[in-house]
Amino acid sequence: MIIVLKPNTSKEEIAKLSDKIKERGLKPVAFDGVERTVIHVLGDVKDDAVDLANSQACVENVVRILKPFKLASKEHQAQKTVVKVGDVSIGNGDFVVIAGPCSVESEEQIMEAANMLKRLGIKIMRASAFKPRTSPYDFQGLGIKGLKLLNKVKEKTGMLVETEVMDVRDVAIAAEYVDVLRVGARNMQNYDLLKELGKINKPVILKRGMSATINEFIMAAEYILVHGNKNVIFCERGIRTFETAYRNTLDLGAVAILKNLSHLPVIVDPSHAAGNRDLVLPLCRAAAAVGADGLLVEAHPNPEKALSDGAQSLKPEQLAKLMEELRPLCEAIGRKLA
Amino acid sequence: MIIVLKPNTSKEEIAKLSDKIKERGLKPVAFDGVERTVIHVLGDVKDDAVDLANSQACVENVVRILKPFKLASKEHQAQKTVVKVGDVSIGNGDFVVIAGPCSVESEEQIMEAANMLKRLGIKIMRASAFKPRTSPYDFQGLGIKGLKLLNKVKEKTGMLVETEVMDVRDVAIAAEYVDVLRVGARNMQNYDLLKELGKINKPVILKRGMSATINEFIMAAEYILVHGNKNVIFCERGIRTFETAYRNTLDLGAVAILKNLSHLPVIVDPSHAAGNRDLVLPLCRAAAAVGADGLLVEAHPNPEKALSDGAQSLKPEQLAKLMEELRPLCEAIGRKLA
Amino acid sequence: MIIVLKPNTSKEEIAKLSDKIKERGLKPVAFDGVERTVIHVLGDVKDDAVDLANSQACVENVVRILKPFKLASKEHQAQKTVVKVGDVSIGNGDFVVIAGPCSVESEEQIMEAANMLKRLGIKIMRASAFKPRTSPYDFQGLGIKGLKLLNKVKEKTGMLVETEVMDVRDVAIAAEYVDVLRVGARNMQNYDLLKELGKINKPVILKRGMSATINEFIMAAEYILVHGNKNVIFCERGIRTFETAYRNTLDLGAVAILKNLSHLPVIVDPSHAAGNRDLVLPLCRAAAAVGADGLLVEAHPNPEKALSDGAQSLKPEQLAKLMEELRPLCEAIGRKLA
Amino acid sequence: MIIVLKPNTSKEEIAKLSDKIKERGLKPVAFDGVERTVIHVLGDVKDDAVDLANSQACVENVVRILKPFKLASKEHQAQKTVVKVGDVSIGNGDFVVIAGPCSVESEEQIMEAANMLKRLGIKIMRASAFKPRTSPYDFQGLGIKGLKLLNKVKEKTGMLVETEVMDVRDVAIAAEYVDVLRVGARNMQNYDLLKELGKINKPVILKRGMSATINEFIMAAEYILVHGNKNVIFCERGIRTFETAYRNTLDLGAVAILKNLSHLPVIVDPSHAAGNRDLVLPLCRAAAAVGADGLLVEAHPNPEKALSDGAQSLKPEQLAKLMEELRPLCEAIGRKLA
Repeated sequence: MIIVLKPNTSKEEIAKLSDKIKERGLKPVAFDGVERTVIHVLGDVKDDAVDLANSQACVENVVRILKPFKLASKEHQAQKTVVKVGDVSIGNGDFVVIAGPCSVESEEQIMEAANMLKRLGIKIMRASAFKPRTSPYDFQGLGIKGLKLLNKVKEKTGMLVETEVMDVRDVAIAAEYVDVLRVGARNMQNYDLLKELGKINKPVILKRGMSATINEFIMAAEYILVHGNKNVIFCERGIRTFETAYRNTLDLGAVAILKNLSHLPVIVDPSHAAGNRDLVLPLCRAAAAVGADGLLVEAHPNPEKALSDGAQSLKPEQLAKLMEELRPLCEAIGRKLA
Repeated sequence: MIIVLKPNTSKEEIAKLSDKIKERGLKPVAFDGVERTVIHVLGDVKDDAVDLANSQACVENVVRILKPFKLASKEHQAQKTVVKVGDVSIGNGDFVVIAGPCSVESEEQIMEAANMLKRLGIKIMRASAFKPRTSPYDFQGLGIKGLKLLNKVKEKTGMLVETEVMDVRDVAIAAEYVDVLRVGARNMQNYDLLKELGKINKPVILKRGMSATINEFIMAAEYILVHGNKNVIFCERGIRTFETAYRNTLDLGAVAILKNLSHLPVIVDPSHAAGNRDLVLPLCRAAAAVGADGLLVEAHPNPEKALSDGAQSLKPEQLAKLMEELRPLCEAIGRKLA
Repeated sequence: MIIVLKPNTSKEEIAKLSDKIKERGLKPVAFDGVERTVIHVLGDVKDDAVDLANSQACVENVVRILKPFKLASKEHQAQKTVVKVGDVSIGNGDFVVIAGPCSVESEEQIMEAANMLKRLGIKIMRASAFKPRTSPYDFQGLGIKGLKLLNKVKEKTGMLVETEVMDVRDVAIAAEYVDVLRVGARNMQNYDLLKELGKINKPVILKRGMSATINEFIMAAEYILVHGNKNVIFCERGIRTFETAYRNTLDLGAVAILKNLSHLPVIVDPSHAAGNRDLVLPLCRAAAAVGADGLLVEAHPNPEKALSDGAQSLKPEQLAKLMEELRPLCEAIGRKLA
Repeated sequence: MIIVLKPNTSKEEIAKLSDKIKERGLKPVAFDGVERTVIHVLGDVKDDAVDLANSQACVENVVRILKPFKLASKEHQAQKTVVKVGDVSIGNGDFVVIAGPCSVESEEQIMEAANMLKRLGIKIMRASAFKPRTSPYDFQGLGIKGLKLLNKVKEKTGMLVETEVMDVRDVAIAAEYVDVLRVGARNMQNYDLLKELGKINKPVILKRGMSATINEFIMAAEYILVHGNKNVIFCERGIRTFETAYRNTLDLGAVAILKNLSHLPVIVDPSHAAGNRDLVLPLCRAAAAVGADGLLVEAHPNPEKALSDGAQSLKPEQLAKLMEELRPLCEAIGRKLA
């Protein structure tokens, strides 16, 4: 951390600040520039210490030198994390497509969806039993009943299943019934939920909050890691910007940065960013080309009858076309489509 | 709802779509423009129906005519909601200052804070027992112990107390110990939490999510209202934009719009928007002038020693100056400073 | 400037970089931290030098210590700039209302507007002769003819007049006919225009670009100052964010920051931020309370017939109400309404 | 256009509004919903008419049905526009790489750059003679001298050349010396410049403004088209968002939407979005995969010595790697790398 002091800060103020830094077990080294004095702070600087520095009246500016995350960083672990979901590996260089309907609507619908995916060689099905809805008047998901349906489909078809969890009280039961748990964008900074997910041993797909910086995104993963669960997969799903021609702006630059900074796998959800199925295919191709480890994409056996997110769900023939387009593309970039 | 169809939509498609609309208990009326056919949908249109329309391949665009919220709207209740906290009224035309430290740090600190507030005539103290922190390595709050300290201060000083609640499992106990519960920006769309808060009878301050639209903000209040708690107070606290000269962009236009659309009171938290105590005073004045019902402002007996948010906490003399500046200002705009 | 080097940067690389810094007439001083080496660069650091540092493969991060602007800064000039427009002073502590229609439509309309303003004691009229329109199919303004009409009104009524200039080729003639020139938001970084405005001696209102940071805003003023014109007035007019309930998010925090960083006056245009006349009054009050030096507000003798921006133009009775509300408010904050 | 009226709008008000609509040569048709009256407006609705509707006190909301652009739309011209630059075609299905240094620095540098490109089979060189710089203290480009150097390189090497034009007074001379003119992001809504570019017959690359919506972007192209120049190429270059890990957020969804709405070619500039050369390669691949017609990418024979934008300029070996990666990728998506 570097602390830039205001012009004309007195020696007494500098001494007082230095003492406070030392109290935190850190080492201050002052450097006199021409127009400003700068204090270098050596040691394991946490956000608390940054806050402390920012709180002082004599401080103009505080600059972190090191990133605030540790366990998620490449400096902590050079080797890439490979998350295993059944016999599927995410993060090993393969390109993994996870697809399925927005929500579990009925046994018939979810079974039909599983069969659609199976025919295309897709091994992990997404489908939400619990639904975060902007309106309290909308379909809120089937809840526990939905979890059980997912489990039934899993047993009947061998399909691996993935679902969202929103309430800390549902983590344990969801972990029992499904193979992968998902943290939705709205809950990326629901720290109590992240802590609970840190205590289970199922893989967690962590979606980026709609207005989360990449730094905050990694810090959210850090919460899960620090509580004991190493199987975290980042999922870029679009950020909120001024543009209204689609729902959110898919941030593929973030994928490249996450791959640079962290050893954790990164997948992309183009469906929620697009909000419209016609945009989904080009964005899926772009996600593969930018270097993502896979996709989380909405597809429905009959989107025009979907209880939620129908507009952005791929139709069966579109999902088939996606897989067809991805094959040569993955080959061109040296990845295996899994 | 108005559904704009793509050019060249066939009569069969229109008939099919009309049938689906009718199945939802709504009434479709087609209108042929020159270049597009438009379907008016009459009845109680919910988001589900908007989703349905958006899901159809023949649909170009869907426009809601009516707002998606009901209970929070002025059309539902013309008369302004006045939320009572002890003997303080929020929403009755008075301008109410709620102030205090970011977090409960110790009995001594919180008692000192309460006394500082009391001397200035401030009747409600804010202070967080549970802290949502970006980093898992930072001070996470005193938890239940903090709630008990707040309660102790309340008993000793008569100060009303307000605190944040993050975990659904803490709602009941927090409601027991404090007078007002707060939903933080990161949890504005934590629907399970909102539902729990709908079941208690303590006032709730609902902070706007950093990237929540005004519509989404009102819908979050609707969740609490629809589950039975009518005592909701909106709190504008800044939105995330590209500007980095301060922490968030305080959106005072939102205050004016909330007052137009809803009967619920609206207060403003300038501290989190500013991120820097020097900006807080001007923003407090602006909040009063724009028509807010009060403030939620961070102040600490000794900000340079605060365990969190010290940089944006007012010093005792700044808080005194704030109250002094607000007095003539409130008078000029016809409000009583409470 | 502080240059943070990547871990494991070799001594040779550091030496090479130091040489490059010296070639620019600057002085590098290396500082070895535990995990990173940091180079302090002393001297008059320009953006070019920041670019240079950023371009080096061994550099992880570059931090500016000093602000990039000079002439506009308080460090350069402690005393506030007071811009004189006829007998009106902007920046001397008075609160100055500049009002008028979006555009010059006809002699009759502009004369009627001038009379409306005069009756309310407003001394400077805004009205655009040249119109930047998103669509090439819309009314593009009366051009030179509009300038002449403004001049005629000025002569007949004594009203001071303000207008926008967009094309470098129109600067000279506009400066001849009107009292204040305005740079619109879309042209804030039209550097050739800024340079031309630096060469005249009429006051310039510089509007903030819709997505300009405060730093960029000040740098745009710096362009005008450095070319010789000291009479620059900042105008905050809302920034582009994700919110769609109004047109742009009025950033009153920026007003407070500009007043902290610069000696130039700052006014606020709430009309373009609001996009809707019902929001304008509360935002005007907030602008006064936050500490702005004045307003630039759209008002039309008959907004429902305006050729542009009618929706956000105040009606005559609203403008009257605004002046009435501002009077006690200005008094409460210790400013004279001019 | 659909005009939603406020509840309780009187018949007289509706009649008055209908008359105003008719005066514009449009046809109003009222439709009575249960809670709101809606007026459909038939005919060639321009922004002026939308403004008019928005200006009326009885109007709650106005919704455009048709897009505001015409000449740029696929409905106006179904067949894709192919822009010819010498013997290179942009928009015919090939993937065209335009590369080169940020600015023309010297004859030696620009000649070296041209040779670097030539060796890799790149036929169009970008390089700016006029530089829009945030700071007036930075290198402002070589100006006319730079244009002449570009022309010299063109004659000596056969390389086609592309450069930015900022000042209306420079359009004619730039069109004389170079093959393609570029409108920078900061000038996307400099309408006088767009009009001048509409009068020449050289291809124009129009870069998206940092905070321009896709609609506004297309409207800017419309300005050039309507003034007579049909050779417009869109260039997506990143939008301004809250994220600070890179410079701007590359919006590849916009590419897909532009291809849906318009017949004009679309290329992508990943360099300015990235601000950092390490991000450029993945973003280039993603741009190809999403369906762009080409790239505008910064590359410098020696980025560490560049006078501007060195940090984001590819090194010669990186540019070579880019071409190598693009070859199989273009093949996989059925495009020829040109």
